[in-house]
Amino acid sequence: MYRSHTCGELRIGDVNKQVTLAGWVQTVRKFGAITFVDLRDRYGITQLLFGEELNKVLDENPLGREFVLQATGLVAERSSKNAHIPTGEIEINIQSFTVLNKSVVPPFTIQDDTDGGDDLRMKYRFLDLRRNAVKKNLELRYAVNRSARNYLHENQFMDIETPFLIKSTPEGARDFVVPSRMNPGQFYALPQSPQTFKQLLMVSGYDRYYQIVKCFRDEDLRADRQPEFTQIDCEMAFVEQEDILNMFEGLIKRVFKDVKNIDYTEKVARMSWEDAMWQYGNDKPDIRFGMKIANLKSAFTRNGKIEAVGELINGAGFGVFDNAETVLAIAVPGCSEYTRKQTDELTDWVKRPQIGMQGLVFIKCNADGTYKSSVDKFYPEDKLKAIAHAAGAVAGDLILILAGREERTRKAISELRLEMGKRLGFRKEDEFKLLWVMDFPLFEYAEEENRWVARHHPFTSPKPDHIEVMINNNPVIENAEKYLEHPYNHIKANAYDMVLNGNEIGGGSIRIHQRALQEKMFTALGMSQEEALHKFGFLLGAFEFGAPPHGGIAFGFDRLCSILGGSESIRDFIAFPKNNSGRDVMLDAPSSIDDKQLDELQIQLNQGQD
Amino acid sequence: MYRSHTCGELRIGDVNKQVTLAGWVQTVRKFGAITFVDLRDRYGITQLLFGEELNKVLDENPLGREFVLQATGLVAERSSKNAHIPTGEIEINIQSFTVLNKSVVPPFTIQDDTDGGDDLRMKYRFLDLRRNAVKKNLELRYAVNRSARNYLHENQFMDIETPFLIKSTPEGARDFVVPSRMNPGQFYALPQSPQTFKQLLMVSGYDRYYQIVKCFRDEDLRADRQPEFTQIDCEMAFVEQEDILNMFEGLIKRVFKDVKNIDYTEKVARMSWEDAMWQYGNDKPDIRFGMKIANLKSAFTRNGKIEAVGELINGAGFGVFDNAETVLAIAVPGCSEYTRKQTDELTDWVKRPQIGMQGLVFIKCNADGTYKSSVDKFYPEDKLKAIAHAAGAVAGDLILILAGREERTRKAISELRLEMGKRLGFRKEDEFKLLWVMDFPLFEYAEEENRWVARHHPFTSPKPDHIEVMINNNPVIENAEKYLEHPYNHIKANAYDMVLNGNEIGGGSIRIHQRALQEKMFTALGMSQEEALHKFGFLLGAFEFGAPPHGGIAFGFDRLCSILGGSESIRDFIAFPKNNSGRDVMLDAPSSIDDKQLDELQIQLNQGQD
Repeated sequence: MYRSHTCGELRIGDVNKQVTLAGWVQTVRKFGAITFVDLRDRYGITQLLFGEELNKVLDENPLGREFVLQATGLVAERSSKNAHIPTGEIEINIQSFTVLNKSVVPPFTIQDDTDGGDDLRMKYRFLDLRRNAVKKNLELRYAVNRSARNYLHENQFMDIETPFLIKSTPEGARDFVVPSRMNPGQFYALPQSPQTFKQLLMVSGYDRYYQIVKCFRDEDLRADRQPEFTQIDCEMAFVEQEDILNMFEGLIKRVFKDVKNIDYTEKVARMSWEDAMWQYGNDKPDIRFGMKIANLKSAFTRNGKIEAVGELINGAGFGVFDNAETVLAIAVPGCSEYTRKQTDELTDWVKRPQIGMQGLVFIKCNADGTYKSSVDKFYPEDKLKAIAHAAGAVAGDLILILAGREERTRKAISELRLEMGKRLGFRKEDEFKLLWVMDFPLFEYAEEENRWVARHHPFTSPKPDHIEVMINNNPVIENAEKYLEHPYNHIKANAYDMVLNGNEIGGGSIRIHQRALQEKMFTALGMSQEEALHKFGFLLGAFEFGAPPHGGIAFGFDRLCSILGGSESIRDFIAFPKNNSGRDVMLDAPSSIDDKQLDELQIQLNQGQD
Repeated sequence: MYRSHTCGELRIGDVNKQVTLAGWVQTVRKFGAITFVDLRDRYGITQLLFGEELNKVLDENPLGREFVLQATGLVAERSSKNAHIPTGEIEINIQSFTVLNKSVVPPFTIQDDTDGGDDLRMKYRFLDLRRNAVKKNLELRYAVNRSARNYLHENQFMDIETPFLIKSTPEGARDFVVPSRMNPGQFYALPQSPQTFKQLLMVSGYDRYYQIVKCFRDEDLRADRQPEFTQIDCEMAFVEQEDILNMFEGLIKRVFKDVKNIDYTEKVARMSWEDAMWQYGNDKPDIRFGMKIANLKSAFTRNGKIEAVGELINGAGFGVFDNAETVLAIAVPGCSEYTRKQTDELTDWVKRPQIGMQGLVFIKCNADGTYKSSVDKFYPEDKLKAIAHAAGAVAGDLILILAGREERTRKAISELRLEMGKRLGFRKEDEFKLLWVMDFPLFEYAEEENRWVARHHPFTSPKPDHIEVMINNNPVIENAEKYLEHPYNHIKANAYDMVLNGNEIGGGSIRIHQRALQEKMFTALGMSQEEALHKFGFLLGAFEFGAPPHGGIAFGFDRLCSILGGSESIRDFIAFPKNNSGRDVMLDAPSSIDDKQLDELQIQLNQGQD
């Protein structure tokens, strides 16, 4: 060992001990004939004092930032103590030292507030990782990992490794593929998740499975997506939805306790997907604050024609509302005295291309009980009052109203709600609100192909009382215009998402465990029997040998960590992340490979052919 | 929950409780008007008793093997108890039951002694996994996983995930590569190990890192190799070899204790590579038994010429020994009375192509102090006595002697020693003997390319007092004939392997942490400066920013589990293994992929071009 103690452990009680520390030079401060060095390691920082004698040595061979130092000396009480760090009461009077390795000047400062830009820090990720801000993220990640494993272990879950070189069965996202040298012309795929394997483990009787495991998706990367990401992947047999919800809210509560010391004792709230969409405009509501969406005008499809019903607002001569498919409102508390400048700024905000609305209507619910609106000329005060009532507004609120096509308007009002919540300080970083969103539609309609698409994935079971509907109806959509009336459109999934502060952190379902139902699902998705057998024959086969009822969940580990760490970016919680082009700029990967490698794999490049 | 209890937990104390169990039908035995069913789940087997009433129901809808059953009833004391299983004192008087899923007749029996062949069991791996024999292997694997994680956690190691999509830098084994769609013409590689990343983490100051992680090697698969395998991967900073040896023998001892309840209190033995090769004929000796190899004649290279020194045996007119480069002997205890048939059989054994020797010479050290040999006519009794003395034989031993080219003979006697150890019962499955093998040569000579090859890997440091030799000498081999005299031929690595019962279960080294030394290593391996920078520029760069001294180890997790489980085959300890052609026969992977996928990746097949 190059050290007797770490740089984080010595205290006033250690005074007069002889110790040896090893670490990195954080700062060097010379005061006349003596020099102070802050020595840093993973555990903390300790002040070293180089007296007159050694100071001369340092004069000849100066220490630089990030030099690796081993130093021996006596622990002494400091005259000027530093209350900000645990070692702040002591320093080490150095007797001898060795420079274990030098460092050139780093391209950015190794500090919480570094001067390094994003690209530079990614290129020198091994230096960025030295910064305390990044280190505490990885420590938190490990703490979550450890906490989750302990909880799952105590609940009889077994970590069982599933393979990484599997079969390509693209359904949804693209697979990364791996050419097989031993089987020329054939490819493995990297798993998008261990879904089918964990189901097979249930068929095998393993009962309670988990894994903290890398998964791979070859998607066009949006900001904050990674081609490889980590899941806490779990599955249970002989369970119903309620069992899964209880088990896994227990898991997250345990993580809260272990990692953040938060006692999340209340039952996790539950909301149907339909309520989430109507009241919050999206399927992962942030319920740290209210400001629910009021539906002033809705579009319904009746006999294939869209009708829009809005009794309060229609027919007042205000074309924007009259012509809109949907009109949605939120009541923003305490903002009735917004100035013209402020409401103009909000109008500009919703007009930005990311939101894409034409304009914003507002009603001020004044403290004195009067109302003032940007559409006063169309709606007299009693009408405004009625609208305010419908929007659940009280005196002092500012009602914001958006109108337009249903999907876009709902998305826009949802964004506006989140924005106002943020501006008003309702989205507190240290407040955590969990929510189960449930009862998703099992299918979505794919217009181009006139077929159904699995909203979650093709292994999700319908809710128990919808299984008959699925079995007893033909999934084929005879009349595309009337797809809304097809029985499959009303089937709800036995699925659930866990939402934390407006982010989906996990999702799962009770799975299909009957061959006939699974085949029906594949047919609904437009797969021929032949294709289904080619891709998923092993699973259909397994269902014939006594498959138990089962279900599970997968948590997005990177995302969970980033929310617990109070950050928007998952990259900050990954030791060696890739950039938005899927590149590791530190390694310079991906890169070209040797012709010999291509030849051995019996493949060749085929660039610029499109 | 479909059950109130598992099939492994009910005891005599539970009598009269109403319980619900769920599991698989192991056996159905009908006795007149009643039926006994053994119900199995992950936790055990419980006997169900179906009385007269329900028996009629069963008559109409018979239960089959592997049906999934949910059954409710009262716990009762059995009249005829089964002492072999923990639930053997009770049975359940069934009141009601539901068949949760049926099963077709499985292709082999779900029993320890199954009637299923290897291929069939691999194809239906999900059924094979139901067998108790396989289940206890996976349970053992999880227990090792858990134990290792606990030990490492308690010793301040942090689990830090390293990336799977990295850069191809083939050195030694072939990489599996992954074409990048977003970067056409470029490829990621799957890691052969997280070696460079864990070293970067040491540079980053993380100090103590571990991961239980999948690694990938595209090698021609020998029996019992897998293209994807799992390592317990560890690294520490500010340590010397001794620190690593202590830390990781602690890890294995902890695993012994937790998993096998073995107190391995003795210090782990240590042996130099040279001693291992001379005394046991290989670098992973099984030290559960002695029978060390005696070197009766050695070849030495002197001035480029091979001389063979064998004072005891040369010149007696026995051409086989006179002309041999090497003559090696083992003294097999208690076998002096072997019959002619037995010694003939041993001679045949060494002549098999796998061993490839020309013959076997033996000397019987009779209990009465006389000697009898197959080469009596060349060696009088006093000579035989002297040879026996040199071989460390005592009365009752049978000395076996092999002669030939050094490498082959050493390998053959090593195999013979292991075979005799096995036959004589010296290689006990429940005895565990650990050994550190150390002081390996840093380099091997690659004749075809006239250059050095790293024996361990290119990041291994020489032993501290050999660093100067490496730095101060030119690695280029001017005279290929005299490579043995090159100073690099004598450099020892600061490396160590952990051997358990004759199997290498782990290996590691103190790493190079100085840029100049690492560059010298790359030069020695025949890499140009440009190539070294292209492949490992990130690591060389990192060494300039204050890299601390560091080292580590990686354990072969699959192998470790198989030895602890008393099996020769790692496949038995992997949930979903691949066969010897790298295929997953259950999934039928690898497989062909769509042209659309190839087009998107901008690659094409190039088969049959060679």
